[in-house]
Amino acid sequence: MSVSKEFAQYVTRLTYAELPQEVVAFAKICILDWLGSALAGSSKAPIHMLAQVAQELGGSEQATLVTGGRSSVTHAALVNGASSHIVELDDIHKASIIHAGTVVIPAALAVAEWKQKSGRELIEAIVAGYEVCYRIGEAVSPSHYYFWHNTATCGTFGAAVAASKLLGQREEQIVHTLGSAGTQAAGLWEFIEDGAMSKQLHPGKAAMNGILAALLAEKGFTGASRILEGKRGFVRAMSQEVDPEQMTQGLGTTHKIMENSFKIHASCRHTHHAIDLIVAMMAEHGVSWQKVERVRVRTYQVALTITDNPDPGSVYAAKFSLQYCVALALVKGSAGLHDFTEEALYDPVIREVMRRVEVCVDPDIDARYPRKWEAAAELDLADGTTICQHAEYPKGDPENPVTHGQIVQKFRTLALDQPKDTIEHYLQMIDELEHVPDVAMFFAQMKGRGRA
Amino acid sequence: MSVSKEFAQYVTRLTYAELPQEVVAFAKICILDWLGSALAGSSKAPIHMLAQVAQELGGSEQATLVTGGRSSVTHAALVNGASSHIVELDDIHKASIIHAGTVVIPAALAVAEWKQKSGRELIEAIVAGYEVCYRIGEAVSPSHYYFWHNTATCGTFGAAVAASKLLGQREEQIVHTLGSAGTQAAGLWEFIEDGAMSKQLHPGKAAMNGILAALLAEKGFTGASRILEGKRGFVRAMSQEVDPEQMTQGLGTTHKIMENSFKIHASCRHTHHAIDLIVAMMAEHGVSWQKVERVRVRTYQVALTITDNPDPGSVYAAKFSLQYCVALALVKGSAGLHDFTEEALYDPVIREVMRRVEVCVDPDIDARYPRKWEAAAELDLADGTTICQHAEYPKGDPENPVTHGQIVQKFRTLALDQPKDTIEHYLQMIDELEHVPDVAMFFAQMKGRGRA
Repeated sequence: MSVSKEFAQYVTRLTYAELPQEVVAFAKICILDWLGSALAGSSKAPIHMLAQVAQELGGSEQATLVTGGRSSVTHAALVNGASSHIVELDDIHKASIIHAGTVVIPAALAVAEWKQKSGRELIEAIVAGYEVCYRIGEAVSPSHYYFWHNTATCGTFGAAVAASKLLGQREEQIVHTLGSAGTQAAGLWEFIEDGAMSKQLHPGKAAMNGILAALLAEKGFTGASRILEGKRGFVRAMSQEVDPEQMTQGLGTTHKIMENSFKIHASCRHTHHAIDLIVAMMAEHGVSWQKVERVRVRTYQVALTITDNPDPGSVYAAKFSLQYCVALALVKGSAGLHDFTEEALYDPVIREVMRRVEVCVDPDIDARYPRKWEAAAELDLADGTTICQHAEYPKGDPENPVTHGQIVQKFRTLALDQPKDTIEHYLQMIDELEHVPDVAMFFAQMKGRGRA
Repeated sequence: MSVSKEFAQYVTRLTYAELPQEVVAFAKICILDWLGSALAGSSKAPIHMLAQVAQELGGSEQATLVTGGRSSVTHAALVNGASSHIVELDDIHKASIIHAGTVVIPAALAVAEWKQKSGRELIEAIVAGYEVCYRIGEAVSPSHYYFWHNTATCGTFGAAVAASKLLGQREEQIVHTLGSAGTQAAGLWEFIEDGAMSKQLHPGKAAMNGILAALLAEKGFTGASRILEGKRGFVRAMSQEVDPEQMTQGLGTTHKIMENSFKIHASCRHTHHAIDLIVAMMAEHGVSWQKVERVRVRTYQVALTITDNPDPGSVYAAKFSLQYCVALALVKGSAGLHDFTEEALYDPVIREVMRRVEVCVDPDIDARYPRKWEAAAELDLADGTTICQHAEYPKGDPENPVTHGQIVQKFRTLALDQPKDTIEHYLQMIDELEHVPDVAMFFAQMKGRGRA
């Protein structure tokens, strides 16, 4: 049986009724965490640019844009997907290196709003979308990740699955949906060299492409039946040495959404372990940045490939600079959304402290990646002593979890620009999601109803 | 200087006034040839499916769909791009293995119609779009082509360039347009195993993505500055051993659109040399299919990778079966649009004749691919004689050209379903294109004006 067929069977068989209560609760946390990021991003310039293009192109009033107004489901997915990725606080799955929320949730929410699906159907779709894209991402990682932005490429399958579940597609249709999704999968890491806005385009476009694939299958449009494992398919074209069977091993018995990690720091996930260590070591040892003469961070190669940047030129680039993040954590004691500012970017103290930071690869840590995203930090203090600490999992990983209350708190911070009653509406909607009869109520309080 | 920057300089500097007259004339033939294919495809089921999705999603009335009505430029490009590829009669460039017309022209035409550009501006944009995607395709071929559908992947850059030229973008904007285009580039060959409809989705989606990239750059959205040659860019991710300088060598001194080939037979280009040979040998030697006991076709590996199929299960698959095409040519003496029918698919005579056809790789021919798309055919006749012939270039290649009259004749055949005065309107519009002040007049006679 083809991988697509196995995924299609899994998707059609998945029912809300059979989901364990903790999976439902966890999915709701994912949605809340996603929404905070989407709202926080909605005022950013690149998101406005995308919304302007969506407005120019026009579209049926099917789904709400977090920037205001309604447009087609594809445009809503494009804008909302991009918006939820820009503040770099959306969820992440280590083993597949995928931010699933930023692709799967905007796709699911747009289709659910359009088709007036229930909260339970939305939860089903999101659980299914996470499962499929995580499994694909795990199978192709880490080789795929060198060139390809897994969130975009593998995420396309997740968005497609979520849409197909909400559209009630049959097995055969889902196979075609996956075929059309996979042949649209794209997103190269090259943008990172310039800190270009492709980082936001990728998840939005993946969500859009996933929906497009599902809508095409609705009309009878066919796609490759073995898009994943086929000899000229996704896996062979875009990664090395993959066992296709890995993708479906144990499928139906797992709820991989539970492996999701949440971000507390507002930077690239590959900097979080180091920030955690710095914050913890300073607190535990009562050390201030003035007393730290040298910082050595040892971690895995991919972390350095993406975040070894001793001179970030923008706030955005700073979130991808391990040296900057470590210095920020040393000086401010935190690295939240409101710590990354234009003022802090060239703050002479932070820039000076950055020069004390050394980063390198640790072969043992590297060997355990991507199963573990680890780091070790050593601080040489002015009194001649050195303190060392090692973190196996960044805060927010399932092995080092955050509480529901911390996610609610994070949401309130991210949604700060929203009216107070809108914030409470969202919190209540998500809290009671399994009892919501019509997801169109979700964005009922969004400003600027009508055409985007 | 980055490859994107060089391309951007070329695009901004290109002017209609400096185009040689033969380039203008040739570009008009490309447009006519494209339009015939687009109209012939517009009644096909997969194109209706795409048009239904476009209608469902809705869009501003910016550009005409060949299926009728108007929608956003992205939806027009999606539908018109797909429509012009489905009857497999659109143009092809050997060295880059790209059907540029089916991606570049629908993108250019949609933007030109929307922005009411002149015929001369449309010609400029198309010449620029062909130039850039051919150069990229040449550099990455043949390795890229094993997994990737060059028309879709490289074509995305061509569509983006055409749109950016029509939008009057500055150098820097074009660099961003190319960045956003390249990071959306997609299209895997896996669909060919099933004869799935991705073949049509690819050019439509590439045209759409190219426009989207240009529209984003209009708003200030940034993309990777070295999307082509960068260490995690298009070339390194999706092909092997490429010299990036090849892409821009002699740029500004060439008009690669002149290297375009046109198709007379309604099948995959990789079958044309063999069909030409069969038709010519039968005519020259006065042989009928009854007298042919055995046919051996020797050609290059890629032709067989794509068209070695002794048992096609659909009319569409038959166009990608070298054995079928050879048998069809033997029995019918031609392989035009009206020869590939449901009746002919399982015609017992053709199926019997197919069993006489052997196909294999010729190492010498293979070594010259993709510079030459060659084949040699040997016919063993019932009287014990064997006749052999070798074709260096299929009919319609620049080295074996068709006449303007043959393209007009082909257009009339493909546009058969259109009202007579509409056909004449199109012929006249394209004939006088350099004097047309507003390309919006192009589709003025299209049925079903108003929202798609």
